[in-house]
Amino acid sequence: MGFAKRTHTCGELREQHEGSTATINGWVAQHRDYGGVLFVDIRDRYGITQVVFVDEASQEASELARKLHYEDVVSITGNVRKRENPNDNIPTGQIEILATSLEVLNRAATPPFEVREEVKASEELRLKYRYLDLRRRALQKNFIIRNQLYQVAHKYFEEQNFLEVETPVLMKSTPEGARDYLVPSRLHRGQFYALPQSPQIYKQILMMSGFDRYMQIVKCFRDEDLRADRQPEFSQIDIEMSFVDELDIYALIEEFIKRLWKDVLDIEITAPFRQISWHQAMTTYGSDKPDTRLGMEITTLSELAKTCGFGVFANAVNDGGDVAAICAKGCAGYSRKQIDGLTDVAKRYGAGGLAWMKVKEDGELQSPIAKFFSDDELKEIVAKTGAEAGDLILFGSADFNTCYTVLGALRLEIAKQTGLAESVKGNDDFLWVVDFPLLEFDADSNRYIALHHPFVQPKAEDVDKLNSDPASVSAIAYDLVINGYEAGGGSIRIHDQSIQAKVFELLAMSEEEAEDKFGFLLEALKYGAPPHGGIALGLDRLAMILARTENIRDVVAFPKTTSALSLMDDAPSGVSEEQLKELGISIVTKD
Amino acid sequence: MGFAKRTHTCGELREQHEGSTATINGWVAQHRDYGGVLFVDIRDRYGITQVVFVDEASQEASELARKLHYEDVVSITGNVRKRENPNDNIPTGQIEILATSLEVLNRAATPPFEVREEVKASEELRLKYRYLDLRRRALQKNFIIRNQLYQVAHKYFEEQNFLEVETPVLMKSTPEGARDYLVPSRLHRGQFYALPQSPQIYKQILMMSGFDRYMQIVKCFRDEDLRADRQPEFSQIDIEMSFVDELDIYALIEEFIKRLWKDVLDIEITAPFRQISWHQAMTTYGSDKPDTRLGMEITTLSELAKTCGFGVFANAVNDGGDVAAICAKGCAGYSRKQIDGLTDVAKRYGAGGLAWMKVKEDGELQSPIAKFFSDDELKEIVAKTGAEAGDLILFGSADFNTCYTVLGALRLEIAKQTGLAESVKGNDDFLWVVDFPLLEFDADSNRYIALHHPFVQPKAEDVDKLNSDPASVSAIAYDLVINGYEAGGGSIRIHDQSIQAKVFELLAMSEEEAEDKFGFLLEALKYGAPPHGGIALGLDRLAMILARTENIRDVVAFPKTTSALSLMDDAPSGVSEEQLKELGISIVTKD
Repeated sequence: MGFAKRTHTCGELREQHEGSTATINGWVAQHRDYGGVLFVDIRDRYGITQVVFVDEASQEASELARKLHYEDVVSITGNVRKRENPNDNIPTGQIEILATSLEVLNRAATPPFEVREEVKASEELRLKYRYLDLRRRALQKNFIIRNQLYQVAHKYFEEQNFLEVETPVLMKSTPEGARDYLVPSRLHRGQFYALPQSPQIYKQILMMSGFDRYMQIVKCFRDEDLRADRQPEFSQIDIEMSFVDELDIYALIEEFIKRLWKDVLDIEITAPFRQISWHQAMTTYGSDKPDTRLGMEITTLSELAKTCGFGVFANAVNDGGDVAAICAKGCAGYSRKQIDGLTDVAKRYGAGGLAWMKVKEDGELQSPIAKFFSDDELKEIVAKTGAEAGDLILFGSADFNTCYTVLGALRLEIAKQTGLAESVKGNDDFLWVVDFPLLEFDADSNRYIALHHPFVQPKAEDVDKLNSDPASVSAIAYDLVINGYEAGGGSIRIHDQSIQAKVFELLAMSEEEAEDKFGFLLEALKYGAPPHGGIALGLDRLAMILARTENIRDVVAFPKTTSALSLMDDAPSGVSEEQLKELGISIVTKD
Repeated sequence: MGFAKRTHTCGELREQHEGSTATINGWVAQHRDYGGVLFVDIRDRYGITQVVFVDEASQEASELARKLHYEDVVSITGNVRKRENPNDNIPTGQIEILATSLEVLNRAATPPFEVREEVKASEELRLKYRYLDLRRRALQKNFIIRNQLYQVAHKYFEEQNFLEVETPVLMKSTPEGARDYLVPSRLHRGQFYALPQSPQIYKQILMMSGFDRYMQIVKCFRDEDLRADRQPEFSQIDIEMSFVDELDIYALIEEFIKRLWKDVLDIEITAPFRQISWHQAMTTYGSDKPDTRLGMEITTLSELAKTCGFGVFANAVNDGGDVAAICAKGCAGYSRKQIDGLTDVAKRYGAGGLAWMKVKEDGELQSPIAKFFSDDELKEIVAKTGAEAGDLILFGSADFNTCYTVLGALRLEIAKQTGLAESVKGNDDFLWVVDFPLLEFDADSNRYIALHHPFVQPKAEDVDKLNSDPASVSAIAYDLVINGYEAGGGSIRIHDQSIQAKVFELLAMSEEEAEDKFGFLLEALKYGAPPHGGIALGLDRLAMILARTENIRDVVAFPKTTSALSLMDDAPSGVSEEQLKELGISIVTKD
């Protein structure tokens, strides 16, 4: 087992070490044989160091070195000397090691793909051999950034007097919204634990326990049909505070984000962040997590549309919905096929179709629906949307949510297609979206559901409307949006037992159901719950933004695919009959 | 929602604040009405502040204050003044607040037990109302210590260049030893994830990925029949390093423990810690996690016993086992009943019975088995065990493990009964137990099982014996033992694929089974695995030791009972048919 342990990492040696003896341990990254002289680059997490083998220094080492393969693990000792041809691109580029001894610590078979910055292998192959992919600097850099994120979070919240507390992973199943992952109990047959979708209730209970300021970096779980940017397990920086209002939370988090950008990216950002209401975010950007950098604001045209001759528009407004539009700069030249593509996007978000108008070079409007509008109406549309020659106007007409969500999706699509999205990168944008509705009506289940979760405090001035007009009640809820990503969300929580009971009632939860699911919380609210609130920041999301990647799998060490598979270790997998028997469950074959 | 937010915590005001106006928020902890003057103590996480209400300062506040109940949540504003009768026992004892206004933020119903330091309620009731129990200073203090433990760990390992990396919670089931908690997959019917018993394989894979130094504070899960000091989910400080040997790990962890004791307890401890081999720990203390502070070392008497006239002893040795004894100082006066109690302990650990000898005041031995020994043999027993008048000698005779384990258990029992255990408290003892056997033979399954886990590196000089005499192979494995608790355990891992395959074979794992369970690890070992090793420290265990408690539930915010129930929220619980149907599982009714 004994081997020559490193005296230096592969990123450490500099000119000042010239003349000293050093041992490095690492992987063979390059191997160039010039007859009498052999150059081998050795790589570790910290960098790359060039090693030279010549017979004059050690014939034994030199001969052994000729047989090295890429990714072999070695220990090399030698003399540090200045390079004849320095490499100014790497920190160790001024020196090299003249090897006097070489030890092969482990051999490497030929890997299924080369460990290089530019890798051509499929993502599937790279996930299967994750340990090889993770050797690439481009990926390692992400985990160094992610580590910085952890460290800034640990330090910052400790300075702010937060207590790190761990909440249970094996908890009670109280499905509201997303699906729980369940864990059968062996000791209590027929009963199940659930993995937390968030430690929401526990952190509130900690406030009722007098912990005052809680933080935890915590894994959460949602058994959803996955999207590209979701993982079945994800991490959040979970925060809760007592005796505060939303302004305290904003200030706390803004300072944290400032620190993060400074420490990780060396970028100074300014706070406070802008705030816009949920309603304004929806009507201006068609999203509750708008990327405001893109401009291309939505224009509401409902007033004009109400009385126009185009039945689709007029009906939408008269049914209580809206008509609105965006102006796609310079897109008047879009082909039939391109517009069909946009129509598909619109349909995916619930639109029946996509109405459009092209502003031609002569200022004329070209559109299948132009004929339904008077000249004045057309002029007003052009004026309001700010369209100019060469632009394309796209319309949404539907209920409020669909109308604006469709335009929000088209806005992002246009930004991608025109290169606008690419052009704003690196210019980070921080935003609070506030004043969310407390509830939204769910047509499927014909009842109100909580827009965030059932514990959000209604705005003081709206509490009276919980009875008379629940849909109009605003919540003290806020999302942190960075570059169009929801980077965090939180709220002030209900600390009054009667308001909590009322909200459960609005959610069509019977007293029995409320008692069964959340009885202990209602009970806890009786014994002196302080005013409290908090936020959860999406850690994976923040890491993505800081690492400047749009693939969440680039910042998760062992990610799962969109079908929740781990390609490296083949989870999930079958288990033994004995295991199932002990758990008292059986598998139901597909019906 | 608006309320007067605190300007100071309840632990913050001092004489220097005299004359200033302050607002505090907190819970009513005490309430003493002296007619015209009302004293109310307000409590928060940071301390207690006395508030005085008199009509002259504010009649309104004074009247409202008379109606306060224990645990009501309040905001109080007033003038800080010096107390007439200072309380030197608390940091805020020099001042009080003369209240000019009082706001009741939330009312508290009469709690099921009082929030006091000395609480008489059953642990069951206290777990059900955990949020009330957690308000007690005695418990909050533990979580402040636990938080310090996290912070020291975060800082120390970052300084040492470790990267914090999160490993998956939803992983593959590879049961070896303890039972996995399973999570049915909805997307892949009939397949299951497992919750990690430890991130062992992932951290090794991270080393193969070139991460060099990994740390994570991570939840682990074992579905065992619980003991008093175990929880189904527990936390560990998980560490792995590349290009190291065990000496590097010892040095790293010793420095961490030193820092911890200094920062949390202000105690200077000295390193390096003593090391004793597993064999020595067993034969001297009858335990692989000995509390060496207790003394009372075991004396091996196998040589003497082999030829003695007492058949039970002679047979034990001649069957390949051992005979050994401890001397219980001053216990010669033990009654029949007390000795029966000790016999029960011995039987619980596998002994057939308990042989004993009392050394009477005149030096005579009183014992049912004395007659089987010659005078010389008796003298030798007394001499070797160091027994003196008034002592009690207790014997073990069985196979090696049983013989010494029984004596180890008796040793702890005697230490408890005689007050010895109590007397050594606070005098912390740090120890490495090293040179564990790699394998132990499991009679039940008639095969070798890994004493730690299947990835432990055999000692270099023993590798050859893997074929010839596997039972005698020592592992490069080490446990950190503090005060008789296993505070951590680790090893140098196998990085050679052929040795790993050989160990799987010794564990009676077929090539198919090894391939199925650990194929990806065997594969990863092919592509350049560095020498590596690590350790996992039991975080809950360390928190217990630092908090000076022997109840693990005192350092876990929301603990489960020994039958894995959460009494606060009633987990585990039944789930809906719909949930089960989606998962494709059904509950098997008890057979």
